[in-house]
Amino acid sequence: MFKFIRPIIYVCGILILIMAMLMLCVSAFAGVLNDPEMPVFLTSAGVTAALGFAMVASCRRAHFHLVSRQLYLLTSASWLMMSLAGALPLFFSHHHISFSDAWFEAVSGITTTGSTIFVGIEKLPASLLLWRSILQWLGGLGVIGMAVSILPFLRVGGMRLFHTESSDWSDKSMPRIQTLARALLITYLTITAACTLSYWLADMSAFDAINHAMATVSTGGFATDDRSMGRFSSAVLWIAVVFMLLGAMPFTMIIGFARRPRLAALNNQQVIGLLGIVAAISLLLTLYLIIQGSQTPFQAATQATFNLVSVITTTGFASADYTLWGPFSVALFFIVTFIGGCSGSTSGGMKIFRFQLSYLFLRSQVRKLIHPNGIFVTQYAGKPVGDDIILSAIAFSFLFFLCLAGFTLVLAMMGLDLVTSLTATATALTNVGPGLGNIVGPAGNFSSLPDAAKWLLSFAMLLGRLELMTMMVLFSPMFWRG
Amino acid sequence: MFKFIRPIIYVCGILILIMAMLMLCVSAFAGVLNDPEMPVFLTSAGVTAALGFAMVASCRRAHFHLVSRQLYLLTSASWLMMSLAGALPLFFSHHHISFSDAWFEAVSGITTTGSTIFVGIEKLPASLLLWRSILQWLGGLGVIGMAVSILPFLRVGGMRLFHTESSDWSDKSMPRIQTLARALLITYLTITAACTLSYWLADMSAFDAINHAMATVSTGGFATDDRSMGRFSSAVLWIAVVFMLLGAMPFTMIIGFARRPRLAALNNQQVIGLLGIVAAISLLLTLYLIIQGSQTPFQAATQATFNLVSVITTTGFASADYTLWGPFSVALFFIVTFIGGCSGSTSGGMKIFRFQLSYLFLRSQVRKLIHPNGIFVTQYAGKPVGDDIILSAIAFSFLFFLCLAGFTLVLAMMGLDLVTSLTATATALTNVGPGLGNIVGPAGNFSSLPDAAKWLLSFAMLLGRLELMTMMVLFSPMFWRG
Repeated sequence: MFKFIRPIIYVCGILILIMAMLMLCVSAFAGVLNDPEMPVFLTSAGVTAALGFAMVASCRRAHFHLVSRQLYLLTSASWLMMSLAGALPLFFSHHHISFSDAWFEAVSGITTTGSTIFVGIEKLPASLLLWRSILQWLGGLGVIGMAVSILPFLRVGGMRLFHTESSDWSDKSMPRIQTLARALLITYLTITAACTLSYWLADMSAFDAINHAMATVSTGGFATDDRSMGRFSSAVLWIAVVFMLLGAMPFTMIIGFARRPRLAALNNQQVIGLLGIVAAISLLLTLYLIIQGSQTPFQAATQATFNLVSVITTTGFASADYTLWGPFSVALFFIVTFIGGCSGSTSGGMKIFRFQLSYLFLRSQVRKLIHPNGIFVTQYAGKPVGDDIILSAIAFSFLFFLCLAGFTLVLAMMGLDLVTSLTATATALTNVGPGLGNIVGPAGNFSSLPDAAKWLLSFAMLLGRLELMTMMVLFSPMFWRG
Repeated sequence: MFKFIRPIIYVCGILILIMAMLMLCVSAFAGVLNDPEMPVFLTSAGVTAALGFAMVASCRRAHFHLVSRQLYLLTSASWLMMSLAGALPLFFSHHHISFSDAWFEAVSGITTTGSTIFVGIEKLPASLLLWRSILQWLGGLGVIGMAVSILPFLRVGGMRLFHTESSDWSDKSMPRIQTLARALLITYLTITAACTLSYWLADMSAFDAINHAMATVSTGGFATDDRSMGRFSSAVLWIAVVFMLLGAMPFTMIIGFARRPRLAALNNQQVIGLLGIVAAISLLLTLYLIIQGSQTPFQAATQATFNLVSVITTTGFASADYTLWGPFSVALFFIVTFIGGCSGSTSGGMKIFRFQLSYLFLRSQVRKLIHPNGIFVTQYAGKPVGDDIILSAIAFSFLFFLCLAGFTLVLAMMGLDLVTSLTATATALTNVGPGLGNIVGPAGNFSSLPDAAKWLLSFAMLLGRLELMTMMVLFSPMFWRG
C-alpha cells in the first residue's frame, strides 16, 4: 500500500512546495507594501514548505510507472492538497474567517470557480487579493496540465477522445511531456501578460490589471471589488470577453497556432462550436435587451456579451445584476451555466465536445432508422469515434444531472430554497461562480450559507473540476479492493 | 407517398372511430342524467365518426408490411388524431373554452399528464368529467399497447431492451399480437374494475369511484374536484397508492402473473427498483414531516407516501399542497418528477430502467479501470445488454435535458418566471401533471398561462409520451428525404 501511494505523496509534496514558494513571493510583495498580512504569508510558507519537504523527503525513492488507479488517486489528492495549502494564508489572516470559509474560498479559487465568501472585497489587503488571484491562475494552469496529460488516459467522461501521442504517460515519453509542459507554461504566461497589458492600457491600475488578468485567463472570476467588473469601462469588458474566450479554448490548439500561425491550426471543431454558441446566444440576449428599451444597442451588446461569455466560459465575472433583466434572462443564464468551454482549456461545465458528440450520435440514430442495415461511423474532428467514447461522454451528462439532483436535495434539507439550492449546486459543479437568487446570485455572496453547505459546495467544485468520475471512483469500495 | 401514409390514415381512422363510439356512450350517459352536454357529445360523435369513416374507407386497401419509418409516423399521427378527437366535445361544450384550452386539456388527458385548465372542476357537468377520465384511461391503454408492440422495434431511448418475441411486427405474428392485445385489455379492465370497487367500498360515490379509478390506473391524475384527492379519507389515499403503483408496473409482467401466479413472475428488475425508490424516499419524507411536528406519524406517512407515489408514478393527484411543507419537500418533489415508472406501464418520466442501465454502465467503467484488460458484459435482468442499447438509453436522458432547457427558455421568453417555466416543462415532458409555483403548482391551475405556452406544453406532453425521439425524428429533413 505504501508503495502504491508513495509517488502520490511525492508529487503532492512538490506541488505544495511550489505553493510555499508563491506564498514567499506574496510575503515579499506584502513586505514592500507594508501590508499587515506579511507575517501571515511567511508563516503559511513555512508550514507549507515544512510539510512539502517532509512529503518529498519521505517518498524520494518512489516508482513512477504509475498504473491508472494511481493516476486517479494522484489527481484528487493533488487538488485537495493544493486547496489545503491555499486555505492556510486565508485562515491565518487577520480577518478571522473560519476554516470552513477559508477552505471554501481556496477551493473556489483553485478550481477557478470564483464564488466568494468575502463581503467588501475592496477592503481586503492587497496581499490577500493577490493570493486569491494566484490561486485561480494556478488552478487554471493545473487544469490544463491535467486535461492534457492525465485525463485522456482515464476512462472519464469521454476524455479519451483527446488521447494523442502527446498524452502518453510512460518513461519514454517524458522528454515530450517536458517540452509540452514548457510550451504550456510559456503560452499561459504570455496570454496572462497580454491580458494584463491590455487591461492596464484600458485604464485599470496595474494591481487591478494583474489580478483581473489572472482571474480572466484562468476563467476564474475572482474580482478585487464587490461590484465585480461593474465598475470598469466597456473597453475593459470587451478585452475581458476576448481573454475569457481564449481561456476557454483548447491550449494545445493555441500552442500549435503559436508555433505555426496558420488559419488551419484554428480549425478546431470545439472552438467553432463554442464561438457559434456564444455568437448566437449573445445576439439573442442583445436583441432582448434592446427590445426592453432601457439600454442603447452598444450598451446592450456589451452587457449581454460580457455576462454571457463570462458564464459560458465558466469565469463568473458580472458587470451587472443580469437577474434583473427579466425572466428570460434569468432562465437563459441558468441554462448557459451548464454549457462550459472546450476540453483542454481552463473552463469547466459540461463542455462543448459532449454536446457535439451527443448531437452526432442522435444524427446517426436518425440515419440508422432510415437505412436500418447501413453502417454509420461517427466522425469527430475528422476522425472516427468509437461507441465507448460517445457512451462515456453521454454518461458524464447523466452523472452530472444525478449529482445536481443529489446536492440540490441536501442543500434544500439545510433549509435553502429550491432556486438557491439548485443554482448553487449547478454553479459549483460547473465551476462558474454565481448562481441565482439573493444569496448566491451575481449580486449576492456565499458568506451567509451554513458551514455544511460551504463544505458540500466545495466538494461539488472539486468534483466538477475533476470531471466527476475521476474523484467519485475513489468512493467505490471496488477501487480500494482492486 | 400516398402508399406510404395509406396504412397510417387507416389505423388513425380506426382509432377515432373507437373514440366516436365512446362519445356515443357518454352522450347516452348524459341523456340518462338529463345532462345539458348530451347534444355536444352526439355532435362530436357524428363529426368524429364521419371523419373516421372517410379515413378508413379511403385507405381500405392499405399494405400492412410497415417499414420502421411508417411506424414512427403512425405513432405520432395516432396520438395527434386522438387528441384532436378528444378535444372536440370540450371545445363544443357550453363552457366556451377556446380551442387552445380544449386541445391542452385533451392532450393532457390522453397523454395521462393530468394538468388541467378548468377552474371549479366540481361544477362541470358529469358528462364532461366522465369524458376527461375516459381520455386518460384510453391514453393509458394506448401507451401500454405502444410500449409493448411498437417502441421495442424502434431505435428510441433504449426501448429495444424490451424487444421480445411478443413484440414482433410482421404478418406471421399477428395472431400472437391479437392474443396479447386481448390479454392486455382484459387485465387493464380488471384492474380498473378492482380500483373502482375499492374506492367505492372506501366510501367514494360510484361516479367519483369510476372517474378516479380511470385516472388512477392510467397514472393520469384528472380529479373531479379542484381539491384533487384532498377531500378523501386515508383509506382512499392508500388504495390509490396501490393502484398507482400497479399502473406504473410493466403490464406484461402483470399479465404473466395473472396467468401463472407465482412469486417468480414478480422478480422484475424494474419493479424492484421502483418499489425500492418509492420506499426509500417515502420513508425519508415521512421522517421529515414527523420531525416538523405538525402531523401524526400516520398522517405523515399517508401524506408523504400518497403524494410521492403520485408524482413518481407520474399520476399527479395531490392530497395537499406539498410545496408548503418546506424547501426540502419542494426540491424533492421537483426532482422525483423526473424519475417515472417502469417501461411498458402507463407512466411517463425518464423511467427506472434508464437509471438502472446508467448505474450498471458506470459500475462497469469502474471495473474496467481496475482491470483495464478485463472484458465486462453488462447484464440487465439476467441478459447481456449491448453498448448500443445502453448508449441509446443514456442519450435519451441527454435529449430529455436538452428539451427541458429549450422549452424552459421559450416559456421564460413569454414572461413566465424560472420556477414556473422549468417545472411546467418538466411536468409536461414527464407527463406528471403538477409543477411548482403559484400557477402550475399542485394548488394552481394552468388556465392563466398564455395560449402559446399551452400549445408549447401540449407539444411537450406529446413528445414526452412518445419517448421524445419517436416524434422528434419527424422534424428531421432526412426522415422525409429517406
